[in-house]
Amino acid sequence: MPVVTIKMIEGRNDDQKRALVTEVTDAISRTVNAPKENITIIIEEMKKEHYANGGVRASDK
Amino acid sequence: MPVVTIKMIEGRNDDQKRALVTEVTDAISRTVNAPKENITIIIEEMKKEHYANGGVRASDK
Amino acid sequence: MPVVTIKMIEGRNDDQKRALVTEVTDAISRTVNAPKENITIIIEEMKKEHYANGGVRASDK
Amino acid sequence: MPVVTIKMIEGRNDDQKRALVTEVTDAISRTVNAPKENITIIIEEMKKEHYANGGVRASDK
Amino acid sequence: MPVVTIKMIEGRNDDQKRALVTEVTDAISRTVNAPKENITIIIEEMKKEHYANGGVRASDK
Amino acid sequence: MPVVTIKMIEGRNDDQKRALVTEVTDAISRTVNAPKENITIIIEEMKKEHYANGGVRASDK
Repeated sequence: MPVVTIKMIEGRNDDQKRALVTEVTDAISRTVNAPKENITIIIEEMKKEHYANGGVRASDK
Repeated sequence: MPVVTIKMIEGRNDDQKRALVTEVTDAISRTVNAPKENITIIIEEMKKEHYANGGVRASDK
Repeated sequence: MPVVTIKMIEGRNDDQKRALVTEVTDAISRTVNAPKENITIIIEEMKKEHYANGGVRASDK
Repeated sequence: MPVVTIKMIEGRNDDQKRALVTEVTDAISRTVNAPKENITIIIEEMKKEHYANGGVRASDK
Repeated sequence: MPVVTIKMIEGRNDDQKRALVTEVTDAISRTVNAPKENITIIIEEMKKEHYANGGVRASDK
Repeated sequence: MPVVTIKMIEGRNDDQKRALVTEVTDAISRTVNAPKENITIIIEEMKKEHYANGGVRASDK
C-alpha cells in the first residue's frame, strides 16, 4: 500500500528506470516491512524548464 | 473544493475521459454533499514504463 | 492501477467517506474499464486554514 | 524546503514560466521567511482534455 | 485553474499563512495572466520527521 | 532534484522511517546517478479510513 511518486528531470534511460523501481521497492519493503506486491511506484518526468530551485529553473542555469 | 487527481496509464479515448469526469463528479457530489461547481478533476496519464507494482513496471510484464 | 487522490476540507463523517470511496471506485471502473481491485483511492483532508481560492482561505470567508 | 507544485493548462510561453517561478519564490520567501535556495517549484502542465470543473472538461466548454 | 500545492514544515502562524496565500495568488495571477478567482492554493504541512534531504530527516539534523 | 513522496498507512516507528529515508535515498542515488544532496523525500501518513483498494477502505477490511 505504500504509494510512491518520484519526480525527476527527464533523460534517464530505460535500464536506469527499471533499476530505480526495483531497488526502491526493495528498500521500502525491507525498511517498513511491506510486502513488495503492495508497493506502487509512479515515475513523473519533468522538463528542465519546469523545475526550479532558488527561483531559477534548471533550464536557465 | 474537492480537488481530485486521477493517475492512470495512457490509452483511454476522449469519450471515456469525458464520461470518467462526469461520473466521478456526480459520485463525489452525491456522497459528500459538495456542489458540482466546486469539484475539480485532473487526469494525469502515465506511460507503462513509468508505473510499477511489486517492483515490476507495467511495460516489463 | 488508477491511483486517485481526493483532497477535501475535513468534516465528513465515516459513512460519507465509505460511500465516497465505493461510488468513485464504481464510476471509474465503469467508465474506463478498469477492474475494481486495481483502483486505489486516497482521501486527504485539509483544514479550512489550508485551502484558498482567489487568494482567500476558507477560514477567512 | 517548501516544495511547490503548480498545475496549469498548457500554453504559457517560456518568459511567463520564468517570471512565474521567480515571483512565486519571492512571495514564499518573503511571507514565510524561507531562504530562497530552499524553495523548489515544479510546474506541471495539463492538456485541456485533462482538466475539469463542475464535471465539464476545459476542452468541452 | 492553476492548482497549487505548497508543502512546508509545520510551524508558521496564521498570519504568515494568510500572507503566503495572498501573495502567491497575486504572483501567479500577474505572471501567467490568470484571474485570481481561478487560482486554488492548498497548504500541506509536514512534520520534521517526515521531510528529508540528502537522506537525513530535518528532525535528525 | 528527484522529489519523492511516500504515502503509507500510519504506524511505523521513528527508526523505521529513518531507515526508509536513508535506504530509498541510496537506492535512487545509485540507480539514476543523482547526488544524494539533491534528493528530497517526503513521507505522508494516511489513516486506515482514508485508504481504499477495490472500493473498500483498509479500516473496513
